[in-house]
Amino acid sequence: MLDELPYDFELEKIVGYIKNGKYRKIILQFPEGLKQYSTQIYELLIHEFKDKIFYIYGDHSWGSCDIPYHEASLIGAELIVHFGHTPYSMQPAGINIPKGIDVLYVPAYSKLEISGELMNKLLEKLVSKGLKKPLLTSTVQHTRQLAKIKSFLENKGLKPILEKIPGMEYGQVIGCDYRLVRMKGNHDSVVIVSGGRFHALGVALSTQLPVIQVDPYSGVVEDLEKLREKWLKERYSVIYRAMDASNWAIWAGSMSGQYRESLIKYLKKLIEEKKGKWFLFYLKYVNKAVITNLDNDDIHAHIITSCPRVPTDDFVIEKYHKPVLSPGEAIMVLTGKLDEYRFMW
Amino acid sequence: MLDELPYDFELEKIVGYIKNGKYRKIILQFPEGLKQYSTQIYELLIHEFKDKIFYIYGDHSWGSCDIPYHEASLIGAELIVHFGHTPYSMQPAGINIPKGIDVLYVPAYSKLEISGELMNKLLEKLVSKGLKKPLLTSTVQHTRQLAKIKSFLENKGLKPILEKIPGMEYGQVIGCDYRLVRMKGNHDSVVIVSGGRFHALGVALSTQLPVIQVDPYSGVVEDLEKLREKWLKERYSVIYRAMDASNWAIWAGSMSGQYRESLIKYLKKLIEEKKGKWFLFYLKYVNKAVITNLDNDDIHAHIITSCPRVPTDDFVIEKYHKPVLSPGEAIMVLTGKLDEYRFMW
Repeated sequence: MLDELPYDFELEKIVGYIKNGKYRKIILQFPEGLKQYSTQIYELLIHEFKDKIFYIYGDHSWGSCDIPYHEASLIGAELIVHFGHTPYSMQPAGINIPKGIDVLYVPAYSKLEISGELMNKLLEKLVSKGLKKPLLTSTVQHTRQLAKIKSFLENKGLKPILEKIPGMEYGQVIGCDYRLVRMKGNHDSVVIVSGGRFHALGVALSTQLPVIQVDPYSGVVEDLEKLREKWLKERYSVIYRAMDASNWAIWAGSMSGQYRESLIKYLKKLIEEKKGKWFLFYLKYVNKAVITNLDNDDIHAHIITSCPRVPTDDFVIEKYHKPVLSPGEAIMVLTGKLDEYRFMW
Repeated sequence: MLDELPYDFELEKIVGYIKNGKYRKIILQFPEGLKQYSTQIYELLIHEFKDKIFYIYGDHSWGSCDIPYHEASLIGAELIVHFGHTPYSMQPAGINIPKGIDVLYVPAYSKLEISGELMNKLLEKLVSKGLKKPLLTSTVQHTRQLAKIKSFLENKGLKPILEKIPGMEYGQVIGCDYRLVRMKGNHDSVVIVSGGRFHALGVALSTQLPVIQVDPYSGVVEDLEKLREKWLKERYSVIYRAMDASNWAIWAGSMSGQYRESLIKYLKKLIEEKKGKWFLFYLKYVNKAVITNLDNDDIHAHIITSCPRVPTDDFVIEKYHKPVLSPGEAIMVLTGKLDEYRFMW
């Protein structure tokens, strides 16, 4: 049955891990795109372990910043099997995470092979733009494909680069960590292998180099220059509207990897230096409804410290009548350094 | 400034409490209806305590089942000031709540006085129906009005009853605890003083006696018989649709007062006795989007164990194509005892 699924759920690894530990209650956590397979995995596991209690976690799982340690602690679960992501590379220090809860990460590698046809499309795109040294990146689902793409491009005379950030896989980027792309090096472009726009846009906003997306699901190879231009216009319009703000709402987040106290302190300091005022809000996940609910005339602009993607992504779709900024954007405004777009902290 | 607000925020009590404790980080938690006052209270408190960090909690606060102990623990907050509710009367046993976090409850009593005109309307309604011994109930916001109503009705020759459940105020009911209404006694009806329909409907579904609502905001006095009939028809149609279910999804909740393990065990036992199958889901708050996201053909019906109001209230508004039952309703189906409507566990 598992053979037919398009992702590698590594059931043997999971079963072995559970057999080696003394777990009584186990939470299975799937991101939205993998939730459709959750009851199948659940049934295989309850069949294997009749004396244990498994829970399918129902809330979002937007990254490995979003591990339900506290929810596990509440019910006494000792293990969380977290599908779809690798351990969090941006984990903040100085927060209290309940002890004694293990997390097993199952990346759920895609079984989709990048075809020769798709690699040829990529080659053509690079050659047509005179790009010779692309940095190869992807979401974790597709990192296993990058070595193949590298060989292919090398055989065609290009000099692709496959590097890594400590704690991550070769070529891997995540929604809020594009240090790989910003790394000093002699690459002249970035290739991102990913489905949808989320990670591709993150790459495009984190570098000024050309970015080419290879979407293994749709089979499309695309230069992201126009998308980046459109997005930067949007962000700069929000950034300029925030220039007059003196009263700021700072939003802090309670997901296990999203409470960034030193960032909050730094923002408070910048606001106070400008004789501004701040209000501090705290919750699990911020969206337009929540901000609308708590907003008032005393607040001129909002900064989201929890997840930098909320302002750039969600608030483009659901426009808001006051500026809602990412940490990097707020620092641009508060320091007056507007020339280079700054996404993250 | 506080004098102008329509609720008593007991600022002196809060300031005194904070002065007596060694708190460094303090979370202010307001329910939706009081969030509009949050920045005013926040500013008064940061003015009073310049060395402390206050956070306005942004998530919902649907009751004292919904205290952000874990969110406080994550950031090292030592005090939660919880507005709008009294300590939870249905707190489940056997869950891990982080230690060392104090909670100060500020009920936010309404300053609205029940007028003589409104009491006369109530009297007329009771007399017209031949009701002489009404049990007086209200949400915590209006409990201070009940003694006055009692005296008024007594002076008019009725025999109103004002009783209490241990740990709650005289006459108080909350969204999931109507034991007061179900208490054995010789009352012939129930009066509920509350705004909106939420608590009034809870009372109406918990007794077969006549229920009269006094809404102090709208000034309306209303017999709830028709509303109850409509609602019971709705609930019985869902209950009957669930009679054929053999595969059940049991939804457990991670709010501090909503993980009911003994209820879950009892439901599993009832399902297994009928040779049925169950899946266990777990999350903070269940709604239609979440259920839709995880539902599949293996599941025939859903039971919400976290908050009994989710199926009866939310799923009436957002109808779902499979039965979604409260604990009491699921027990009706699984035991075959359908005669008396059962709301709660």
